[in-house]
Amino acid sequence: MAAGSGQRMGGEMPKQFLPLGGVPILRRTIEKFTRACPEAQIVTVLPKDSIPFWKEYCGAHFSHCPQLLVEGGITRFHSVRNALAKIPDGALVAVQDGVRPLLSVDLIRRMIARMDQVRALIPVVPMVDTLKVLRRDEAGDLQTVEGAGVDRACVFGAQTPQLFRSEDLREAYAQAFDTAFTDDASVAERKGIPLSYIEGERYNLKITTPDDLSLAEAILTITGEI
Amino acid sequence: MAAGSGQRMGGEMPKQFLPLGGVPILRRTIEKFTRACPEAQIVTVLPKDSIPFWKEYCGAHFSHCPQLLVEGGITRFHSVRNALAKIPDGALVAVQDGVRPLLSVDLIRRMIARMDQVRALIPVVPMVDTLKVLRRDEAGDLQTVEGAGVDRACVFGAQTPQLFRSEDLREAYAQAFDTAFTDDASVAERKGIPLSYIEGERYNLKITTPDDLSLAEAILTITGEI
Repeated sequence: MAAGSGQRMGGEMPKQFLPLGGVPILRRTIEKFTRACPEAQIVTVLPKDSIPFWKEYCGAHFSHCPQLLVEGGITRFHSVRNALAKIPDGALVAVQDGVRPLLSVDLIRRMIARMDQVRALIPVVPMVDTLKVLRRDEAGDLQTVEGAGVDRACVFGAQTPQLFRSEDLREAYAQAFDTAFTDDASVAERKGIPLSYIEGERYNLKITTPDDLSLAEAILTITGEI
Repeated sequence: MAAGSGQRMGGEMPKQFLPLGGVPILRRTIEKFTRACPEAQIVTVLPKDSIPFWKEYCGAHFSHCPQLLVEGGITRFHSVRNALAKIPDGALVAVQDGVRPLLSVDLIRRMIARMDQVRALIPVVPMVDTLKVLRRDEAGDLQTVEGAGVDRACVFGAQTPQLFRSEDLREAYAQAFDTAFTDDASVAERKGIPLSYIEGERYNLKITTPDDLSLAEAILTITGEI
C-alpha cells in the first residue's frame, strides 16, 4: 500500500518514494518481502499520478522485481479494495504499508508459516508510555476528557504486514466504507473473521514525518542495512 | 526517577546506569536538565543498593553536578513520594524518567517557560499505529476483546518530564497508592489538579529493552550527541 500523498512529510514527493540510505523507502519495503518469500507476487498500489514515475524508476533500477501496479482509491480502504480485485481466491495476502521498510525478513517468514494454523494474523506491540484520552478545544489545545482512562496493559499498537486469506479479505472489503476502518484488521473483524496476533517489532516504524525518516536512517545504520 | 531495577533489560546492571555512547544513561538524562536550567537542583532517586555505585561514579566523573540522592520505594509512586519529602514548597518540580535521555534541552526550556501560565504540564505524543484492545488467554496468547475499540485520534502517549508546583504534587502524593497511578499526571489528576498538555518528542523514548538501547545509540549518532 503506497497510495498515500504523504502530506505530513512536507515537500512534493510522496514519502514512500523518498530515499532512505539512497534507496526509495518503497523499494526497501518490497525487498523485505521478496527476500522473505521469493515466489511472492508483489501488488503495488500507488497514487495515479505517481505510476509513471514508479514505472520509470523500476525500469531503470529495479527491473528484477516484477510488480503488478494498481491505482489507489480515495482512502486506504478503497486502495486495498482495488488491489484485492486483482488477486485470485486461494491466495495468502500480506497487506503491508509501503512506508514500513524496517520490519525483519524473519518476521515475515514466521507470519507466513503461522498462517497454516490461523485465519488472519496481526503483528502488535505493547505500549510503553502511559496513555491519555484527550480532546482538542476550540483553540486547538489538548484538554483532559474527564473519566476517560485507558489501561495500557490492554492496549497494543497494530503494525503491518497483516495476513489474510484472499477470499476472507475480499469479503470483508465488500462491506461499506466506515471511517472506523483504520487498518485491515478492523475491516476483517467487522466481518467476523477471527484474528490472531503475533508480537511485532519495535523497529517496524511507519515513516510519516521527517523525524521518522531520520530515525529510520539511524536504525538502518545500526542494523547494517546501509 | 532512577529507582527501577530494570529487569526487562536482562543483565545485572539496572538500565539507568548502562552506557549509551560511553556515558551512563542517567548522566545523559541529568545533563539535559542542567543544560536547560543551570540553576536547577537535581534530586536523583536510586535503588538503595545502587547508591554507593552512583556516588563513586559521580565522584570520579561527574562531580561538577551536585545531586541530592534519595532512596527509592517499592513502586515508582513511593519513590516520587520519597523525593517530594526533600523538596520545599514554592518550587517548580520536573519529574523525569531517568531512562529518557533523548529529550531536547529546548523542550525542557519551553516547558519551564509555559509553567508561568499553567498549574501542571504534561508532554504527549499522538499515536501512529491503530490501537487494539486485547487480553491474554490461559495459554498466554493475545485475544480480541469483543466490542472494545480505542480511537487513536483521542489517545496520546504521555512522556516525561511532567511539571508541577511542589505543593500541588506533594498534596497529590499524599493520597493512598493505587495501581492505576502509572505516571505523575494520573496521581495529580485524581487530586483534581488541572493538567495542561504540550507536544512531546517522538525521539523521547523510555529505554526499557536492549532494542531501545540500540535505537537510542542510533538516535544519538544522527543528532550528533555521540
